[in-house]
Amino acid sequence: MSKMINIQSYLKEQEIDIAFVTNPDNVFYFSGFKSNPHERLLGISIFQNADPFIICPKMEISDVKSSGWSFDIVGHSDTDQPWNILANEIHSRTKHISTIAIEKGHLTVERFEALQAFFPNARFVPIDNQINELRVIKDKEELDKLRKAAELADYAIDVGVKAIKEGITELEIVHIIESAIKEKGYSMSFETTVLSGPKAASPHGTPGNRTIQKGDFVLFDLGVIYEGYCSDITRTVAFGGINEEQRKIYETVKKSNEESIKSVKPGIRCMDLDKISRDIISDAGYGEYYTHRLGHGLGISVHEFPSITGTNEMKLKPGMVFTIEPGIYKSDVAGVRIEDDVVVTENGVEVLTKYPKELIIIQ
Amino acid sequence: MSKMINIQSYLKEQEIDIAFVTNPDNVFYFSGFKSNPHERLLGISIFQNADPFIICPKMEISDVKSSGWSFDIVGHSDTDQPWNILANEIHSRTKHISTIAIEKGHLTVERFEALQAFFPNARFVPIDNQINELRVIKDKEELDKLRKAAELADYAIDVGVKAIKEGITELEIVHIIESAIKEKGYSMSFETTVLSGPKAASPHGTPGNRTIQKGDFVLFDLGVIYEGYCSDITRTVAFGGINEEQRKIYETVKKSNEESIKSVKPGIRCMDLDKISRDIISDAGYGEYYTHRLGHGLGISVHEFPSITGTNEMKLKPGMVFTIEPGIYKSDVAGVRIEDDVVVTENGVEVLTKYPKELIIIQ
Repeated sequence: MSKMINIQSYLKEQEIDIAFVTNPDNVFYFSGFKSNPHERLLGISIFQNADPFIICPKMEISDVKSSGWSFDIVGHSDTDQPWNILANEIHSRTKHISTIAIEKGHLTVERFEALQAFFPNARFVPIDNQINELRVIKDKEELDKLRKAAELADYAIDVGVKAIKEGITELEIVHIIESAIKEKGYSMSFETTVLSGPKAASPHGTPGNRTIQKGDFVLFDLGVIYEGYCSDITRTVAFGGINEEQRKIYETVKKSNEESIKSVKPGIRCMDLDKISRDIISDAGYGEYYTHRLGHGLGISVHEFPSITGTNEMKLKPGMVFTIEPGIYKSDVAGVRIEDDVVVTENGVEVLTKYPKELIIIQ
Repeated sequence: MSKMINIQSYLKEQEIDIAFVTNPDNVFYFSGFKSNPHERLLGISIFQNADPFIICPKMEISDVKSSGWSFDIVGHSDTDQPWNILANEIHSRTKHISTIAIEKGHLTVERFEALQAFFPNARFVPIDNQINELRVIKDKEELDKLRKAAELADYAIDVGVKAIKEGITELEIVHIIESAIKEKGYSMSFETTVLSGPKAASPHGTPGNRTIQKGDFVLFDLGVIYEGYCSDITRTVAFGGINEEQRKIYETVKKSNEESIKSVKPGIRCMDLDKISRDIISDAGYGEYYTHRLGHGLGISVHEFPSITGTNEMKLKPGMVFTIEPGIYKSDVAGVRIEDDVVVTENGVEVLTKYPKELIIIQ
């Protein structure tokens, strides 16, 4: 509820009459109700003074109730005009609507036009930054969930590494990992990635029926959801002997990961952190093969704020959670990425993922 | 390529200079490249006369190439200004841009404003319907993939039904089903649902650690992706004896499903089909417990056009593929849904999912 109060204060301060929130992750953040409504309308209306209400498909009303939402629930069926219902509910709570805040980064043009049709004289302003700024700082309860999610990710990597053997395919390892997590009653943050040999050199490749071979790097990228909060980890291990350049690439990525983590503390800018990671890789001669940002925020969404790029001037604050995931992808030589989840503390950093990073060579 | 030519003809006919397509499912439809770019820019620009180009994160360029895309690929890195790059590429191909088609049902207000900033004098029109009308009619190749996807869904239901036994939980059955599909190298269209007893009466409930008990209905809702195309099936079976009302509910849903399927043929309206299914359930006295539309289109997306609701006047045409999924959800009595995937043929209907619908009672 304190989260909602923050938005209400913001509305008063900015003289915004209502915020209409439809991003499912934001809806979960404010209500505890997690759902993918597909094309159906699901949203929370937050007012300066009146109580908020949620609009949802009728068949989800009982699920909203059991998620703990204690305010009004307005249902709509597939034959209703949901925007009409929404507008009526809003009008019944506040007569004067001159400014409406929306998530410009989420609301589609079509939905925006539907809303505009009911409030033709309203001014529409973005609420994205305000919600992101709120979500970017995790409270104690959220950090506990993220720690659990990271612990499960460590476990999943362990399962995957132990599954490597002669003749096994990438997809078979994916299956073993996901089964182990499902068995515990959890689900993955995203489709598990296991890439081997030349395929590991594609940072966004898809696992297939390739058999793991001696001399391969095997790259695992996966995450687990714990009570709505996501982890995201990458480890790369060697199967059989690797050559000198492969080892150099591994050690370079490891150093980049470790030095970046050491530099995490309140006040440092996201871009500074990205530069630290990039300089180490460039100095080793692999700058052109590090083709993505250092990391991304993590929480209810598997990609959220802050974005750790070379151009983001945002300063780190205690409670921010993000990934540190430098990588080198050199075709025909090696694809290596090492990714951890970290939280900014009052004085420095806490690393949530704890799976070892020393080069593991499976014989 | 014939798909792209259709859009090019439409652009000429409507005097639209360019269509910019960013919905990942539409990108896949036109390019064969399937990817979830998250917040990164991925899109295809289609011109009246010039060749199209794709803009994507730099690290995905090799994946785009290997997916078979034969036109220009424009990469952007995390520190680039992707909209700037996009605008330059567009300008280099066509000087005169007065009308731009976008997917209003997908493009966010933020992205729309970014595009508008580079083309401040352009008129923006929706391309959604044109793409949907194209995608709603499946060609032979697509139907073959949907048949395979449905076959895998039948198999998954069979695995799930066979897994039911004293003491097993919903999540354990989910795990057994998903493992069987993963083992074959496929992935699910969405998170598999297994609901038992009172929980089956929530049409969108989440599987948990509830143990299946005698006298329960067990509801399976799942789908499998085959080469980018989705199936979606629901079956409900009884564990141990069920009472008379539970049986009546099952038989009513089954009749509703079967009569609706029999009525599928070119020319009938979506709303007529929905009414046929609804009348059967209402006549049996359960109208208020059938809380959703009859079905939804199926293809690259697990929910697409046509929507089989009580208000959709769209007439069925050969090649349309959708679900038929009536249900009755009466708390404390039963939750039953029976869902098939069907394709409209020249003369009637082909049912893609073939798992039996006679009431199965597992002893």
